Amino acid sequence: MEEEEKPLSLVLFSGTDDKLTAAAVLAVGAAAMGRPVNVFLQYYALDAFRAGKLCADHGLSKEATAEQAPSVRGHKGQHWSDLLKQAKDVGEVDIQACALSMDMYGIGREDLDPLVDGVEGVAAFMASASEGQVVFI
Amino acid sequence: MEEEEKPLSLVLFSGTDDKLTAAAVLAVGAAAMGRPVNVFLQYYALDAFRAGKLCADHGLSKEATAEQAPSVRGHKGQHWSDLLKQAKDVGEVDIQACALSMDMYGIGREDLDPLVDGVEGVAAFMASASEGQVVFI
Amino acid sequence: MEEEEKPLSLVLFSGTDDKLTAAAVLAVGAAAMGRPVNVFLQYYALDAFRAGKLCADHGLSKEATAEQAPSVRGHKGQHWSDLLKQAKDVGEVDIQACALSMDMYGIGREDLDPLVDGVEGVAAFMASASEGQVVFI
Repeated sequence: MEEEEKPLSLVLFSGTDDKLTAAAVLAVGAAAMGRPVNVFLQYYALDAFRAGKLCADHGLSKEATAEQAPSVRGHKGQHWSDLLKQAKDVGEVDIQACALSMDMYGIGREDLDPLVDGVEGVAAFMASASEGQVVFI
Repeated sequence: MEEEEKPLSLVLFSGTDDKLTAAAVLAVGAAAMGRPVNVFLQYYALDAFRAGKLCADHGLSKEATAEQAPSVRGHKGQHWSDLLKQAKDVGEVDIQACALSMDMYGIGREDLDPLVDGVEGVAAFMASASEGQVVFI
Repeated sequence: MEEEEKPLSLVLFSGTDDKLTAAAVLAVGAAAMGRPVNVFLQYYALDAFRAGKLCADHGLSKEATAEQAPSVRGHKGQHWSDLLKQAKDVGEVDIQACALSMDMYGIGREDLDPLVDGVEGVAAFMASASEGQVVFI
């Protein structure tokens, strides 16, 4: 397997719009290079992928200062959900919800946005992430 | 060396219960696949591994909202310290405290929980993490 | 290419002094081992690299408690900017500002500290980070 074809695996933990955007930008970049992208949604990131909540205001990282926040919020880039859709259009991007986190919220597959491809346990995720890079965001 | 045998190296910086649980779940997943796991404890994560403090309330990430926090706190999964013990039982998991962070708190080996295997500098950690994946949490 | 020569790629998102120090320590460790280091500055981390702001007080992670903060602030280690300079002295360290984040703040190359080597898009960063490890901080 060529190094360039090894997956980029993103463990998304944070659910703020700034971190989700940073993650989506990496996903687009990797997908555009022809690399498979595995996304694993946990904790607050999973909450942001509930049906009907994708475009809600998910806030910013708490470290954002009163000076920084307006620049970050006002940036006219694409929404992270559109970036992820774009990544799916150009490449092989699989978005899975962490089974443990689903259980934590007491929700089912039908409570998630269709952008999410399925629900899997950490063993399945680690198997898909055994090669390439793993990034926790 | 087979790709599957390459280590998963976790740099633990955050010391909140949610992030420590997320880290422990990855450690268990990797150990169960037969991969060596290196854990490097820095800053707030190191503080959570002090003797007698493992099961204290280490709080949640500041991004946890009033709606999310009860679900995260109420989850009946195993404690992260039990998950790490389980990872040690099934695989090769080495937990090292960062020498610089030890110095920062002015503490010694005897101030740490026995779950911690030793103290090492960043050079030793980077040597063990030169192959496989490095994840910062 | 030997595994030891593969790059360590750091995506710096957070701009607090504790996380920047943790990142700089990893950069020094990797550079000392002869590994190329790619640093990609986004969001709050980029803000910390503005001209004249390197040594300002960038605060700590919000999870720092009133008990922990004095230890972290009082640590007599080197400043993260000095660690990065040291990493550049001993190895091949390339620090790039994320073009999207530059645009977000409406700033140009001249607004950044000379420690920053240039501005690049995510595609260029992902190309340099296609091998080795990617760490998001």
